[in-house]
Amino acid sequence: MKEFFKVVDLKSVLKYSSDFPRVETEDIPLDESFGRILAVSVDADVDLPDFTRSTMDGYAVRASATFGASEANPAYLTIKGTVSMGESPAFSTGSDEAARISTGGMLPEGADSVVMIEHTEAIDHTTTEVYRSVAPGQHILEKGEDIPKGAVLVPKGKRLRPQETGLLAAFGKKTVTVYKKPVVGIISTGDEIVSVHETPAPGQIRDINMYTLSGLIRKAGAVPVSFGIVRDDFDDLFKKCTTALAQSDMVLISGGSSVGTLDFTIDVLSALPKSDILVHGISISPGKPTILAKSQNLSIWGLPGQVTSTMVVFEIVVKPFINHISGLSLKNESNFKFSARLSRNIASAQGRTEYIRVRLNHKDGILWADPILGKSGLINTMVNADGLIEIGTNTEGLEKGVTVAVIPL
Amino acid sequence: MKEFFKVVDLKSVLKYSSDFPRVETEDIPLDESFGRILAVSVDADVDLPDFTRSTMDGYAVRASATFGASEANPAYLTIKGTVSMGESPAFSTGSDEAARISTGGMLPEGADSVVMIEHTEAIDHTTTEVYRSVAPGQHILEKGEDIPKGAVLVPKGKRLRPQETGLLAAFGKKTVTVYKKPVVGIISTGDEIVSVHETPAPGQIRDINMYTLSGLIRKAGAVPVSFGIVRDDFDDLFKKCTTALAQSDMVLISGGSSVGTLDFTIDVLSALPKSDILVHGISISPGKPTILAKSQNLSIWGLPGQVTSTMVVFEIVVKPFINHISGLSLKNESNFKFSARLSRNIASAQGRTEYIRVRLNHKDGILWADPILGKSGLINTMVNADGLIEIGTNTEGLEKGVTVAVIPL
Repeated sequence: MKEFFKVVDLKSVLKYSSDFPRVETEDIPLDESFGRILAVSVDADVDLPDFTRSTMDGYAVRASATFGASEANPAYLTIKGTVSMGESPAFSTGSDEAARISTGGMLPEGADSVVMIEHTEAIDHTTTEVYRSVAPGQHILEKGEDIPKGAVLVPKGKRLRPQETGLLAAFGKKTVTVYKKPVVGIISTGDEIVSVHETPAPGQIRDINMYTLSGLIRKAGAVPVSFGIVRDDFDDLFKKCTTALAQSDMVLISGGSSVGTLDFTIDVLSALPKSDILVHGISISPGKPTILAKSQNLSIWGLPGQVTSTMVVFEIVVKPFINHISGLSLKNESNFKFSARLSRNIASAQGRTEYIRVRLNHKDGILWADPILGKSGLINTMVNADGLIEIGTNTEGLEKGVTVAVIPL
Repeated sequence: MKEFFKVVDLKSVLKYSSDFPRVETEDIPLDESFGRILAVSVDADVDLPDFTRSTMDGYAVRASATFGASEANPAYLTIKGTVSMGESPAFSTGSDEAARISTGGMLPEGADSVVMIEHTEAIDHTTTEVYRSVAPGQHILEKGEDIPKGAVLVPKGKRLRPQETGLLAAFGKKTVTVYKKPVVGIISTGDEIVSVHETPAPGQIRDINMYTLSGLIRKAGAVPVSFGIVRDDFDDLFKKCTTALAQSDMVLISGGSSVGTLDFTIDVLSALPKSDILVHGISISPGKPTILAKSQNLSIWGLPGQVTSTMVVFEIVVKPFINHISGLSLKNESNFKFSARLSRNIASAQGRTEYIRVRLNHKDGILWADPILGKSGLINTMVNADGLIEIGTNTEGLEKGVTVAVIPL
């Protein structure tokens, strides 16, 4: 078996992500844009709101006319008319006049605030009592107060949440320019692997990794494409890689875990057009035997054979590359970290960054992270896991009770 | 304006969710199942693994033959052969014999453990030195050790993550029975509302709520269907509700915020076939003027007109109902709560549960929740928000520095 000849730390691996170009862009209808990544910043071409609006049901007034008003000493205002929803009022209001208005209605000229209906009592059709004073600007949204014309509505590189699509709708953006979803090809390798459609003979197992990786790729906002299973053969793997690279923005070789497969993978990756082996081994656990190569301008990965290791490598290493080529700008993203308290001591070897599966548990009002025991290759450890915690390279372990950041799985 | 006549607290509202039936089920291919909710529990029909496998590259041995082995005093074992990947070994190994084996290979009969290749040195083709002892069961996964036959693989009501789809693939489940995605109809109301395709006249605004709600519905795993905009007219709204109920599993009336619309909504909901107004007003802020009605066996909601209030009501009130009809079993879900420290004092009125928008900020290794100031109707407060925090009904406010749970937005 060949030695790992380019073992590097995680930080160095992640730096390579900027070597790879972002995917192309496309224009799509706004109502299909949820979760997509904006490729061109959108500016406000008008004020929002575009007119001064009421935020309450009541009377539009000039605030000064209400100063000193109280239950005992109400202000008396003349009702000039009613503001119709969706229309510009045909009248203006004077200093002692009021206009009936609903939430969202346009303030008549002359009014600068709204008195809530609860604080008034109409005496007849032409006069109302006001029991409370309002300040200028109260219970209204002024033109441009929400978003002024010229402001950046949504910056390039932002993943669109429901509130951003709503905001773009407010400005009449029927279509948006987003990055295409990257296509991530998956090649499964290994003489022992059979498709999910087959019944494994003794010694064979079904292709678990392809399904797990497909889900992870979808979750990362990309499109998985399976290129099937390749036997441990140089020519077959080379041909499959060539096909996959031509049709994808990134390729994952889901390793057969056998010695032979590892050898073939590194040989095939070296033989691809304009190829460079950037990483061969990462100082993380699990996931050390990970390969990152560049062929032309695409990344192609050799992932560990054990599905549990592959999941960790995907979350920690591959996903940041997908984010990068997807056009995601991390500085615009919410960067939540769950924190929890560790429920027991964990030992760890120095010299590598270790990822421990944990299950989260609310107990006595505290969120506890329980490390999941059991051999690392057990799939049930991933199914039982809610997340991963990281133990740094220069740490011998973590003590029970410390606060840990949890990466959700 | 009609009084809210059935104001209830949030907990009482959420109890109504079980009044509504779950959606129907469908069989879908496993590779389209990511994010879907399993409708029938799946059991393990075989052991996983189905044969005893090596988890390392090395030699399959009988552990007792290695006891006491060291660099200075190696054990000498006869190499019986090589285990081919994906095949059942044609030979067994005796007490002083070893078989070359790769990760994932099937242990020959007679072997009970694996010595890592790093701890051996082959002298020639038939003999190897072993420098370290192994315990029985070391570096192997025994038949059924991961998931024993008969165990529940994935329980009914679980939302499938990549690891669950991988596990189902391991057992050859080509298709799975999941709940259909609920269809949630959206009706926009209000004389001031125009479609995103129109240029608003003075006093009009575009239909922000429909786009925001569509995104929220998608995020909740359901399918949004827009039924367009209805003017403030009883007959039109009644007709539209009838159409929407016939084509949906739940209907949201996105309120025009005007007095007239509120009146029409409650009247129309009362007039629908076999209808019951379950809730008219919830003691939460924002979101008090929310209506929940039942028509036949479907829920139909009147949501507040301000989009910021609508987002909060959706997250806190409507989503649990979508989760219920979607078939989601919350006891099987990871229930993460972000915690953060409040960056300033917040006052709150008693007698209602209040939701405050916050932005999260990492500073000095602490995650701070900064309350977002500004009038509640400003859309920019939702765009700037990373989450919501809750201030309980009987609390007068929260003090700077306390730990708060954050609901991500």
